[in-house]
Formats: sequence, C-alpha cells, structure tokens
Amino acid sequence: MSSSNSGIDQLSINTIRTLAADMVQKSNSGHPGMPMGMAPVAHVLWSKILRFNAANPHWWNRDRFLLSNGHGCALQYILLHLTGFGLTMEDLKNFRQVGSRTPGHPEVHITPGVEVTTGPLGQGVANGVGMAIAQEHLASKYNKDGFPLFDNHVFVFCGDGCMQEGVACEASSLAGHLRLKNLIIIYDDNEVSIDGPTSLSFSEDVPARFRAYGFNTLTVEKGDDDLAGLSKAIEEAKKSDRPTLISVKTTIGFGSSKQGTQKVHGEALGADDVKHVKQQLGFDPEQSFVVPEDVTKFWQDVREKGAKLEAEWNDMFAKYQQQFPAESAELVARFKGDIPADLLQALPKYDAASKPDATRNLSGVILNALADRLPGIMGGSADLTPSNKTELKKSSDFTPANRQGRYIRFGVREHGMAAIGNGMAAYGGFIPYTATFLNFIEYCFPSVRLAALSNFRQLFVMTHDSIGLGEDGPTHQPIEALQLCRATPNLLVLRPADGNEVVGAYIQALNWHGPSVLALSRQNITPQNATDASKVAQGGYVIHDNSDDGKNLDLVVVASGTEVSTVMAAIGDATLANMKIRVVSMPSTTLFDRQPVEYRRSVLPIGVPIVSVEASAVFGWEKYAHASVGMTTFGLSGPLTKVLDRFHMSAATLPATLLQRIGQLKEVATLNGGKLPTLNTHVEFNYEKHSH
Amino acid sequence: MSSSNSGIDQLSINTIRTLAADMVQKSNSGHPGMPMGMAPVAHVLWSKILRFNAANPHWWNRDRFLLSNGHGCALQYILLHLTGFGLTMEDLKNFRQVGSRTPGHPEVHITPGVEVTTGPLGQGVANGVGMAIAQEHLASKYNKDGFPLFDNHVFVFCGDGCMQEGVACEASSLAGHLRLKNLIIIYDDNEVSIDGPTSLSFSEDVPARFRAYGFNTLTVEKGDDDLAGLSKAIEEAKKSDRPTLISVKTTIGFGSSKQGTQKVHGEALGADDVKHVKQQLGFDPEQSFVVPEDVTKFWQDVREKGAKLEAEWNDMFAKYQQQFPAESAELVARFKGDIPADLLQALPKYDAASKPDATRNLSGVILNALADRLPGIMGGSADLTPSNKTELKKSSDFTPANRQGRYIRFGVREHGMAAIGNGMAAYGGFIPYTATFLNFIEYCFPSVRLAALSNFRQLFVMTHDSIGLGEDGPTHQPIEALQLCRATPNLLVLRPADGNEVVGAYIQALNWHGPSVLALSRQNITPQNATDASKVAQGGYVIHDNSDDGKNLDLVVVASGTEVSTVMAAIGDATLANMKIRVVSMPSTTLFDRQPVEYRRSVLPIGVPIVSVEASAVFGWEKYAHASVGMTTFGLSGPLTKVLDRFHMSAATLPATLLQRIGQLKEVATLNGGKLPTLNTHVEFNYEKHSH
Repeated sequence: MSSSNSGIDQLSINTIRTLAADMVQKSNSGHPGMPMGMAPVAHVLWSKILRFNAANPHWWNRDRFLLSNGHGCALQYILLHLTGFGLTMEDLKNFRQVGSRTPGHPEVHITPGVEVTTGPLGQGVANGVGMAIAQEHLASKYNKDGFPLFDNHVFVFCGDGCMQEGVACEASSLAGHLRLKNLIIIYDDNEVSIDGPTSLSFSEDVPARFRAYGFNTLTVEKGDDDLAGLSKAIEEAKKSDRPTLISVKTTIGFGSSKQGTQKVHGEALGADDVKHVKQQLGFDPEQSFVVPEDVTKFWQDVREKGAKLEAEWNDMFAKYQQQFPAESAELVARFKGDIPADLLQALPKYDAASKPDATRNLSGVILNALADRLPGIMGGSADLTPSNKTELKKSSDFTPANRQGRYIRFGVREHGMAAIGNGMAAYGGFIPYTATFLNFIEYCFPSVRLAALSNFRQLFVMTHDSIGLGEDGPTHQPIEALQLCRATPNLLVLRPADGNEVVGAYIQALNWHGPSVLALSRQNITPQNATDASKVAQGGYVIHDNSDDGKNLDLVVVASGTEVSTVMAAIGDATLANMKIRVVSMPSTTLFDRQPVEYRRSVLPIGVPIVSVEASAVFGWEKYAHASVGMTTFGLSGPLTKVLDRFHMSAATLPATLLQRIGQLKEVATLNGGKLPTLNTHVEFNYEKHSH
Repeated sequence: MSSSNSGIDQLSINTIRTLAADMVQKSNSGHPGMPMGMAPVAHVLWSKILRFNAANPHWWNRDRFLLSNGHGCALQYILLHLTGFGLTMEDLKNFRQVGSRTPGHPEVHITPGVEVTTGPLGQGVANGVGMAIAQEHLASKYNKDGFPLFDNHVFVFCGDGCMQEGVACEASSLAGHLRLKNLIIIYDDNEVSIDGPTSLSFSEDVPARFRAYGFNTLTVEKGDDDLAGLSKAIEEAKKSDRPTLISVKTTIGFGSSKQGTQKVHGEALGADDVKHVKQQLGFDPEQSFVVPEDVTKFWQDVREKGAKLEAEWNDMFAKYQQQFPAESAELVARFKGDIPADLLQALPKYDAASKPDATRNLSGVILNALADRLPGIMGGSADLTPSNKTELKKSSDFTPANRQGRYIRFGVREHGMAAIGNGMAAYGGFIPYTATFLNFIEYCFPSVRLAALSNFRQLFVMTHDSIGLGEDGPTHQPIEALQLCRATPNLLVLRPADGNEVVGAYIQALNWHGPSVLALSRQNITPQNATDASKVAQGGYVIHDNSDDGKNLDLVVVASGTEVSTVMAAIGDATLANMKIRVVSMPSTTLFDRQPVEYRRSVLPIGVPIVSVEASAVFGWEKYAHASVGMTTFGLSGPLTKVLDRFHMSAATLPATLLQRIGQLKEVATLNGGKLPTLNTHVEFNYEKHSH
C-alpha cells in the first residue's frame, strides 16, 4: 500500500477511510465500502478544487457537492467534519442514531453542508442537473462585466446504482441537450453492487452512453491512487463547454480484507477487519476515530482558503449592490424566498358571471400573473405544454443559446423533471414548477416525496385530474393519485373548484414550507359566486347552505375541484329541491386537517349526514364523510359526460346517486343509535403534526 | 405522392392512413399523426413478417406486437380489423366511446390481439424486454431438437416519448446486457413531440445510446416510402445475435396539410384536412371508413397464411405432446395458470414455538417452496437480493449463457423491472415476481398500476416495509406506500404478521386475478399461535379475545404485519391487564373489504372502541378504527427500537399510547351519544366492486 502521493494527501485519504470504517463499525449499520473507495477523489475535490466556505453553507456562489450515492454519507459527514461545517467528532460517533445530525442517508434539513437529501438512487444526479440550470440562469441574468456573481460548478458523486436508475438517465439526457457545462458527474466505477459484481446486470458502456447524450467524458483508471490524474480530470472537466462525466475506477472498501467485493458495501466490516484496515493504512489498530494533527491542520488551511474565497466574493457583491441596486435587491429577495403579502390583491377575482373554463386554463393565467411578480418562478412541462397550460407568455425557452429563458422544455421525462425541480429549489432563488398529467405524478413520485421530506417549495402543476379527462381512458385517468399525495407528509394537496380557488391555491402553495400539488381539470367548470380565494387557507368552507342557520340540515355534501360545480348544479334538481342542504368546497384536506377542531365541526357538523363527492378514489374520505361518491375501480375511455354518467357523477346522474346515499345513511343512523356517527375529523387526536 | 411500391402495398398503407384520420375525426378525439406516419412500417411488419393467427390471439408462439406509443392505437385497431382479429368496422367507428372495444389507449383486457395495455410512455418497450426474456426461457426449457416450440420475435413500436422515459432506458440497458436477440424495437423517429420539434428537448444520439447498451442498431432513412428498406431492416434484425433498434424516419401525420408538425399529434385533423388527406392519397374525399376490396383481399391472404402457420405449429405440438408428455403437460398447466388446490398443505406451518424471524426471511422460504411446485414462478430483485431474500436456491441466474435460469438480476432498475414483469405475465406461462424495498415501489408504481389495470398476476415482494427498517432513515422508510397500494383498484395488498400469514399471503396472491403487493419486514417478529394461513383469505380475523364471548369489550386493536406481535406483547402490560381486549390481525384490507358486512361487524363490533396500529400512514384507517396509532410524519434514522419508541409504537411504548387513545375515545363516545360511532366498514355501501 505504498503511494507516490504527498504524505499529507495520503494521510488525509487514509484518515477518511479509517473514520468511515469506525463510524459504520460503531453504529453497526451503514455503508463503509463507498467512502473507503471514493476517499481519494473526495479528498482531491474538497481540498484542491471545491470552492466553499464552511462557515457559511449558504454562500450563493459556493460550488455544489451532491452525493447521489447517498448511502455513502459517512464520507460526506467526515468531509463536513474535517472542513469545519459544524459536524463534531461526537456527531460522527452518533452516526445513524435517533436525533443525530448524521442520519443514515444525507438529509438537507438536518445537516449543514448537505445540499440535497439522497439515498433513493439516481436522484442526486438529476438534482445536479437542476442546480446547473439554476446556475446558468442566474449567471445569465445577474452576472455583469467584472461581476461573475454566479460561476460555481456542480459536482455530483454517484455510483453504479445511480447510473442504472431511469431518473438519472432522463436528467442526463436533458443535461446534454442543454449543454450544462458546469455540471461534473463523478462516477464511482467500482464494478460492485449489492448483488455482486456489476457484470451480473450492468455491462453497458456508460461513457459511450453519456457521449450519446452530448456529454464530455473522461476516465481515471487508477482512482485509488492517482491523485494527480483525478485533479487533472476535474480541472479539465471545468473547462469543458459541455457537462462532463468522469468515470473513476476505484476499489470498494479499499483497505478492507474484503475490498473489491459486495461484502463491504452495506454493513459494518467487523472489529477484526477494521483493525486490518488500520494496519494496512498505517493507523494504530487499537485506536478509533483518529484524525492526525497534520490532517486537522491541512483541512484548517482548506477552510481558511474557502473563507477567503467568500470574503472576496462578498466584496464583489458589495460593489455590485452599489452599481446594480435593483438586481441585487431582486437577488436578495429571491434567495430569501419571501412571498409578497399583497399578492392576492394583484390577482384576478372571479364570480358566477365569469366564463366557464378549465382550472388548467385558469392556472395558466394565474401562473403567468405570478411569474410577472416573482422572478424566481421558473419551470416547465414534460412535453405537455399545450395541455398543462404552463407556458410563460412573457418569457422564452431556457436553451443553450438563451439562458435567461424561464421556460424549460423537459421532454417526456417526468421523473427527471421533478428531481431537477428539487435541484433548482435547493440551489436557492427559485420557485420551480413542473407539470404533467396528474396520473403521471406516479412517474415522478420518488422526487415528489423527496421534495416533501426536504421542504423544497416546488409546485407540481398536475392537470387532467380525474376521469373527467374523458377519452384518453383509464391509463390516463388518475384514481389513487390524489390519495397518494394526501397520505404523504408535508405535501400540500390542492384541488381548486374554480378561478377563485385557483388563485387561493397558488397563494397557499407559495406560502407553504414544502412542495404542493395543484390538481387541475381538463374540462370546464362553472364558476361559483361563493368560492373565495382567501378561504382556501382553511382547506374547506361552506359555499352554500339553505338551512335554518345550519340547523335541521338534511345533508352536507363535501366536494373538491370539478365536483363542486357539479354538486351545485345537482342540488338544483327537483328531487333535492325540498331538502336543506349544505355544500362544502374542500380544495385541500391538508389545510382542513390543520384547522382547529371547532372549525372543522362548524363546517362539517356532528350528527348530520355528510356525503363526499370527488371523481377519484373514495379511499380516505371516511375521515370526513359518512358515505362517498367517487371511484373504487379504474375509469373508462369515452366522452367526459358519458364517463361521468357511467360512474354516477355527472350533474344529471348525481341527484339520484345522492338520494341513494341518503337512503343508506338512514341505515347507518339506525346502527348508530338514531344519529349519524361522529367522524374522525370531528375529534382532535394528538397525532404528530409535522415532520420538521 | 408517387411511389415505386407495388400498388397493393401502397393502397393498403393509404387505407390505414385514411382510416386513422376518419377514426379520430369521427370521435373528435385521438392521435392521427402516429398511425399515418407509421402506416408503412406497420403494413410491412404485419403483412410480410409478423407470424400470427388472427383466429387465435393466444397462440403461444405468435410473434408479439407491442405498441409502446399507445396513443397511436388507431393504427393497431385498424390492423386488428384488417387482419380479422374480430374488430369490426363498427368498432373502428366507435373509437374512444364508452364500452367500445377500441378505447383511447390499447387495453389488453378489452381488445383481442392487444398484448399489453399502453399509453403511459416507455412501458411497452420494457414489456417487450419481459416478453423476450419469457421467450428465451421457454425456448431454452421446452424446445427440443426438431421442436422449436418457442421461436417467436417481439416487435415493439415506440416513439420519441418512449425513448425519453426512464423505464424504457432501464429495460433497454438490461435487454442489451441479456442479449435478448429476439427483441426488435422499431423507433418512430419523426422528430416531433407534443411541445413541437424534438429539438426542443431531445438531441441525443439515440442509436449510439442503444449501441452503448449492447444493441444492434439499424436506420431506415425513408420510412414513409422505402418498403423494401423497411422489410430488409426487419429481416436483418431477426438474424441479429443481439436486440435491435431500428430507427425509422417518418413524417408524422403523413398526407395531412399539417404533416410533420405537432399539430397532427393529438387531435382530429378537421373535416377539411381529412378530405385533403384522402385527395393526397387517392381516396374519395367524400367517403369515410373505406377499405378497398383489393385491400380486404390482401389482408385475407395474410390472415390465411397466419392460420396455416399456427396449424403447422399445432401439428408439431401434437407430436411434441406424444414424445414429451411431461414437458407438454407442464406447459399446458403453465399457460392455463391454474394454482394447485393443495398448495397450502405443502407449505410449512408455524406456531409460537417457531423461531422469531423477519417476514422477509419467511417469504424467502415460502417463495422457494412455491417455486419448486410452480415452474412458472420466475423473477428477481432490483439489486437487493440479499435484503429481499428472493433468490431461488434450486435455480440459477438467467443469463445469456444460461437461459434456463429462473432468477433475474435486474440491477438497480425498479421501474424497468416491474414493467418487465408485466411483459412476462402478458407472454403467458409465468408468475413473475419482482422485489425491492417497499418505499421504492414508488419508483415503479406506473407499472404496478398497469399490472392492476391489466389483471397481470405479478407478485411484488416488498421488504423493509416500515420505519422498523431503522437506520436507513426516512428516505427508505415507507409512510404513504401502503396507502397508495390500497387506494389502487385491483391491487391485492398483503402485510402478513408472521410465518402462517406469509403462507396465506402467497396463497391469496397466487389465486388473485391481478397483481399483489407483499409487504414484508426487515426486523424479526414473534410468531403467534392464533395466526392462520387460511384465514388470510378473510383479510382480517380475531387472534386474541379475553372478553366474555365478544361481550363487554373494552377495546379492539386491529393491526397488520409486524405490529401484530407488538400489540400482542403490549396487551400483556400490567396497565392493560384488567381490560377486555380483542386483537384483530388484518393482513389485507383489500380482502377484508370483500367480506360480507356481517363478517366485518363480527370481527370489528359496532359500538366498541377500535384502535388501529400500523407503522405506516394512518391515512385510510378511519374506515376501520376510531383512532389510529401510526405515522403522520416521515420517519427517522436510528436503531429500530429507538425509532419505534420515538413514534410510540414499540412494545414498551405502545401500552401508554393505547391508553392515551382509549382516553380520547371516551370523548368521541360522548360526542356520539355515549357509544362509539359506527364505521364505514360496518356498512355495505353499493360501491362498484371491480373494474373488470
């Protein structure tokens, strides 16, 4: 295990390796193989190339480092410790413990210096594409002669798993197309995955594939040892006019007696082998968690160099602020992410005299109005622009030739798109929005979930939100998609009924500490007088009630989205005309759940028959309603009204459906001692409210 | 629009084009562009190459034709009409109407001759990979000298969208690795997608990418016209020792005044343009839905040729049956898909004396026992074999050198894997199983959904099914995944509590007319005496009750999976010892929902406090319980018991949590007139029960 590398470099690398072995050994859980294999490239990148200030993880122009193979997070934690981001030796010792700052996979909201939450493979690669887009756009918009405010690079570490995942394939294809030159993907080509050698399942020519995407590709054959080669490759990549993939041949678990095999991938090496590692690498086998003083000093110097880098940049920005006060103020506001309080007033109001329109069209209008006010709004569609109505009329496409464009043509790449949106949100200064049909949120849900876990404010603009899309049929008609979203923590789900609620939905989404799903219709709705943008904040509210001040109600109908106007039409039917009916519009159960129980009871009174109507799975409505009108099967291809007829949910068929439900609720009341049962929404259970 | 092609070929192609224009025009909905552009290649393939017998869409050795760009289904319906699969001209006229056999995207359970349900892009490509695996395996296992029972090819049509989707990328990479020579993907390289020219978002070198995967690639430059070239390319592809991608340059909407633009992609051409098409192609613009007599005759000949092909094959199979009675009987049984009635007796029984074990380990044992009995069981894991416990001990890996292997190393390609499983199920003769962590079912859910829509019996073996996986943390801990599955029609969700229920779960899954999800634990469970494999059929059943024959119950706890043994431990706690408690094990709400209401009431009695315990989102449990113990946030990285402690769900913490819920239920009873409310599960609503 000799090396021609300078003593301190090799010592630092071996320190990283032994710390990784110690961390996993102590927690008896984790992945030692990757950190021990990638220690050399991590050392080179972080000590010689990466521009960062450990004292300020939020410096706008820092180079971004993303660990797409997030299971190797011990590596990142060690780097964050050595460089002084704030992780202590105690934190390293608490690896994978409850409440620690060193969880089992990197979590952006927990650990300073972690840029994105990774672990689910391939995501970090796609996040990196989003960051590179963000960088190019901000540079193009705000950099001025002599003021390179944004010239950072985006470095992504990834492994074989990331290279195999579709999300990374999609995003990389787009990165090549967009010629994102500041993106540098460093691929740990260690030829080992969990099942065994990658030759079991993965024999493609990865660099050739990336060249087909339009990438520059480089290879470092001796990634365990050749520090000069690693350094040279990265420097070369920085000069490329295209994104770069650097394949680095490494030995997984370098130093272990089991190195180069899957046995070092995902479990502690065992006490004996950890000793073996230390012997091999010149460390005292009896000591653990050791950082030699020279190594501490070495990284202290790196840290100081970084602080200087930011200080210089800060000086530049101070001058920039003087010369370009408007641009700098805009930038500050963008990175702060605040939403103007007067936004609602600036947006249109609708009433029953407004034109019947699809909520996707209304969304297009509101999105454009918001984009005019908020320069951070940037996004696009997965090749459904004319359907999703997401084009920004006053902007242009983001292309290699036009980095100022705010509209992204994602291609038919939903998963890549959502993960790219996360990268843009993580970069700072952006409110990304991404669009497809609601049913195809399932193509990108792993990224939606990570947005929720990471509190990334991405707006998922999901049109064609029910069987009401008609002819495209059950492959396109969402049934369980809304329920999936509602069951996901931190995800704000909004299904507005008309223009006013679309306005309210956007306001709520912009002010939400995390991602939102806007479920929007293909078909026209009838605008209502009683809908109210500001009441969307309550999640559900009364829009019609012909009872005696809420007394003697025969029926409460709670509906969302397109079904609100259908219900309003249905209750005009002669068969229901003599009944005292309340209609509740419920654009967001997420928000309704957060209201005080008194409010919930005031909207959905105890003891009164409550029926939900939503052209989606009935699953989950048991919380709010005694019976439901909705879907328990897949949908059907056909014209919208015929499909709604078939499922008893058109304006024409709904009265009979409601009467049928009312009949059944009489039986329920009998079972319940004469009165309709209280529901879960009527009670304040002390469930955990928020993840973080 | 002259052509050097033979009159009848060109006439047939133009017939296809005009029929497609007519169908979309009549329904005023659909996608004319692709059928009009791909008509030549479809004509060549179906009339000169494809081996099929239209009278028997189930002939085992037919060539498979998959339309991955399913929005172009008018093309497929026209071919099924011309070749006589049973679609009438009336069916073509009913395109995209409710109840028709020509829905908006191809649906395998609706239209004879449709092999897989497509529309969600990329899926058909991956299905084709599964079919090619199925073909290779059956050929290797059952073909004998002079008896090439299985030598069919798999042809996939796809477009730019499919080429961009990650699912197709993943599956294609695996197809190249596995050298699936009988797979031929025909890529409609028309350079137009919905947003506009593909140059907006897609500039990669697709053939170079596929060569990197290990494909043979061919290009037909004049796909509108060069029938000889098309024919030659396909014949050449059939001889390749690797899978082949044929890129065919076509003109979308050929014949339309808007040809070559996105305007012909997804809507009717308009009456004037349809006339223009007919004029261009030599048809009477005043007539619609015309098939010239010569064309009818031409396809009649094709049909007869196909009938002869199967007749010859049938003769061969008759001889094969005589010479190889065991093999042929096995094959017949495989394609029939029946499950032996005595399977349960052949599987292990467990009781409280059995070893505490993880349900993933027990699953591994049962799966192997079943695979010994059922040769159609074939599958694998997305590079989590040691974690998912899915290896078939008596079999070997399916590789280019060993086609008899029944274990597939899918690599880290969840989405490709599940779609490949669908292709295998669609081929016939297989019960595919595929595995990953439960949380990552979200990576492949679009394919899970299509399995449900298509009634494909794929077993999704999903381990690490809760926060109980511990240290890997919230990126890996499922919260909403079970709820997603339960909200999906036709999908059987099973979360067994111990060995007996794992046995029962597999029996139910094998006998289910569609896909199943088996949610299995990473951690050990304590086996119970009262669990019962055969009672899994009821979905939920009583495993403990210390009341007076069900009278005077203080509490019913309903739990699933790992939480069943936790609950059984918790009720032994001193604080609960004086209470009359019933414990219900609920391995499957899917199955419980299908029981008569009397049974449901007998298990979960009306008026008694019912609390659910499941280490997953509480969302949806309102149907079965008055209060829930479960997740409303994301999980946490840490050792299993500490994580369960933190969320009040360990054996140690659960008694206090239950007592707290009991306290709250007193308030609920007060609100409800002194008794606990009836629940949705107590009532028989007449919701639609099954899709099909």
